[in-house]
Amino acid sequence: MAKEKKLVEAITPMAEDFAQWYTDVVKKAELVEYSSVRGCMILRPNGYAIWENIMHQLDARFKAVGVENVSLPLLIPESLLQKEKDHVEGFAPEVAWVTYGGNEKLPERLCIRPTSETLFCDLYKNIVQSHRDLPKLYNQWCSVVRWEKTTRPFLRTTEFLWQEGHTAHATAQDAEDFTIKILNIYADFCEHVLAIPVLRGKKTDKEKFAGAESTYTIESMMHDGKALQSGTSHYFGDGFARAFGIQYSDKDNQLQYVHQTSWGMSTRIIGAIIMVHGDDSGLVLPPQIAPTQIMVIPVAQHKRGVLEKAAELREQLKNAGFSVKLDDTDKSPGWKYSEQEMRGIPLRVEIGPRDLESGQALLVRRDTREKRQVPFGQVAAVAGEMLEQMQQDLYDRAKEHLESSIYTAHTYEELKQLVAEKPGFVKSMWCGDEACEKKIKEDTGATSRCMPFAQEHLGDTCVCCGKPAKKMIYWGKAY
Amino acid sequence: MAKEKKLVEAITPMAEDFAQWYTDVVKKAELVEYSSVRGCMILRPNGYAIWENIMHQLDARFKAVGVENVSLPLLIPESLLQKEKDHVEGFAPEVAWVTYGGNEKLPERLCIRPTSETLFCDLYKNIVQSHRDLPKLYNQWCSVVRWEKTTRPFLRTTEFLWQEGHTAHATAQDAEDFTIKILNIYADFCEHVLAIPVLRGKKTDKEKFAGAESTYTIESMMHDGKALQSGTSHYFGDGFARAFGIQYSDKDNQLQYVHQTSWGMSTRIIGAIIMVHGDDSGLVLPPQIAPTQIMVIPVAQHKRGVLEKAAELREQLKNAGFSVKLDDTDKSPGWKYSEQEMRGIPLRVEIGPRDLESGQALLVRRDTREKRQVPFGQVAAVAGEMLEQMQQDLYDRAKEHLESSIYTAHTYEELKQLVAEKPGFVKSMWCGDEACEKKIKEDTGATSRCMPFAQEHLGDTCVCCGKPAKKMIYWGKAY
Repeated sequence: MAKEKKLVEAITPMAEDFAQWYTDVVKKAELVEYSSVRGCMILRPNGYAIWENIMHQLDARFKAVGVENVSLPLLIPESLLQKEKDHVEGFAPEVAWVTYGGNEKLPERLCIRPTSETLFCDLYKNIVQSHRDLPKLYNQWCSVVRWEKTTRPFLRTTEFLWQEGHTAHATAQDAEDFTIKILNIYADFCEHVLAIPVLRGKKTDKEKFAGAESTYTIESMMHDGKALQSGTSHYFGDGFARAFGIQYSDKDNQLQYVHQTSWGMSTRIIGAIIMVHGDDSGLVLPPQIAPTQIMVIPVAQHKRGVLEKAAELREQLKNAGFSVKLDDTDKSPGWKYSEQEMRGIPLRVEIGPRDLESGQALLVRRDTREKRQVPFGQVAAVAGEMLEQMQQDLYDRAKEHLESSIYTAHTYEELKQLVAEKPGFVKSMWCGDEACEKKIKEDTGATSRCMPFAQEHLGDTCVCCGKPAKKMIYWGKAY
Repeated sequence: MAKEKKLVEAITPMAEDFAQWYTDVVKKAELVEYSSVRGCMILRPNGYAIWENIMHQLDARFKAVGVENVSLPLLIPESLLQKEKDHVEGFAPEVAWVTYGGNEKLPERLCIRPTSETLFCDLYKNIVQSHRDLPKLYNQWCSVVRWEKTTRPFLRTTEFLWQEGHTAHATAQDAEDFTIKILNIYADFCEHVLAIPVLRGKKTDKEKFAGAESTYTIESMMHDGKALQSGTSHYFGDGFARAFGIQYSDKDNQLQYVHQTSWGMSTRIIGAIIMVHGDDSGLVLPPQIAPTQIMVIPVAQHKRGVLEKAAELREQLKNAGFSVKLDDTDKSPGWKYSEQEMRGIPLRVEIGPRDLESGQALLVRRDTREKRQVPFGQVAAVAGEMLEQMQQDLYDRAKEHLESSIYTAHTYEELKQLVAEKPGFVKSMWCGDEACEKKIKEDTGATSRCMPFAQEHLGDTCVCCGKPAKKMIYWGKAY
């Protein structure tokens, strides 16, 4: 019993200190280990397996729309990074610089990629000649480095894993359409696989990507009401193409600049999974993304027939297509339950001597702890129902939380009070001026999250300056 | 016709200049593009797709023996790299050093990982306490950087992709067994998937990994008779564990050092695929690793019914489980054939108006150009047979080439003459002294490849010094 208490006690309750709860969960669920390298984390098997599933599922969605994977260098010569003015201003202050190769000082510094627009442009310049070469729809799975001052596992680390898509198109329309197509893939993936509802919209000029003409975003809401930018898709127009000289000859043999996009989703999204679905017993993983969906736990496993039946149930579940494990270690059942709960495994199957007699196993859902006694022959079928229902319920609860935590401000006083008192997002009208955006951030700590595609008319004037409003916008504190 | 000639002419014949043939193939098959970063290459979709297949298949083999994937930082603090003496001596001269983060000079230099033994040791030190925590069987898929003077695509590049496995075991025996288990996975993968026969054996002390007690290797032979080290597996004993203080309490509660291994296979192996199977028309991919196994090419595709039937055949082949594409671009059929051959796609299906009338399609094997007229209904079945036969034939041919290019030297004169005149490997007896190994390298240019597990008794004395022989060994010039 002492041991079992220890595992649960290791987690600070969410209501007491959300930030500490988060840190405890990532550590105790063995997702992450801190490293000797400042600001860099180690993804342990439990954490990396989630990322593997994310990669696997997102990659299939990208390939379905014609995206191809490539691998570009990790290092970018300083002169290449400097080719696009806004881009270098945005990234140069936060890159790691390589100055020596072995014992020799390099003639030109190289930075470790913070993102790879410049390298993709350098490639496209060489391989795009004709309209027949377009579109180029390339993506790479890799890590990038940004020299962050303060770091938190998954949310902000000096190095992080991500995918970065970079495309080149013949026309502005093709490029803009593709930017939105990818944003919708991200949104659909978050909602249907991760059970995380998102708001889709456009970033303000202040918040857009360095070098982009427009940045589109999906924003999700954590359990504490804060926002997490969960995926972005950028439209570049022909800005990079002009800086790098990426031209193609069109059908009339005229030289034209390509139009480009880039888009990324990172291991940050694992932070969102934790903070949207987790509870005071640890992680809760949506069945669609859980590396292990079901844990079979024998009770009194030394008793005759228990382990055999447990193994039989595992086979039944495996053959039905579930990802399933059997915990036959010599730990106590109680300890095994809390480990399974800590790790967020969606369903457990308990099987002991009494179950053998009654011909039933006990199925327990991770999120609600709903229990069902199920005859052996129906375990796989019922497990399927329970997992499906859990996936849906996780989404519905998160959606309910998101919707009930969005408030409307018509006046500046209302805005300030709502941000101060209500965890969540505040929507209001906005004039479009960066001055108002900055003032709101200074006065409230909230930043603009996005101008949603689903615009509402909440009034005629900007909530801050009172001038005519241009857009409905969401404000919120963010990770 | 002009265009078609151009594509084939773009390749230098193998017999004329093997090195140039290789460079032409990697470029014209669009596997690789050179980058603006010294010594770094870009893997284009055709090249990266081969690596994706390698990752997919090797990863499944690793997981089947209990290996778990993780992700460790890209950067290693200098003090950490220096902890194991032999290791730092081996790698420090060829690492890239990060000295600035943003605008600030770092208090300690960080190198970009040339390999990650030190980081894994630092992790194991923190997470291994008890014998219950062992073994730890971790692997990561990533890139590493080694500052190379001269580089060639796939074979030697400053940055390359690989997997690096790092394991910790309770006993020396467990660790040694695992080292060999992985070597056998590499060998089996090369032989059964890549159709590349290998020699398995142990490296000499001179050629072993920096910090290892023993290094095991698989060596393959390229078309020009040169060797390519294709995968290595290292046994470390407890050397790193002592340097890093990685201890566990055993069943009797005594502190013990762990015993470790590491092992890696890299994108180099794609160089081997090219140089073992390729021909004067370009790449030849073994069906088991080819990203596209079959290309359907319509002839006179504007003619009524041709494209429809081509699409129908693609569906038939796809439904039978093949990876298949249809080239319905407006290029000429001849051009499409040479593209398909250049890219090494194992089988093509030609379908034109006359085939429509006769109810048959023409299937053409990439390696032998063997052609078969096949009734529409049997296309998938015959394609399966032809691909299977091709996989076997590629292996058999490579095996025949390997075996017929191994010579035996009983005297030093013989050794020198064989290395000078016969492309291939030379086997001889060896006393085990590094002095002889160095002399042979100086006199002939050949290095020791391995002391094979399958030892033969070729004589009693060292081929170089005449002293009593300890081992039979292979010599060869190597990439």
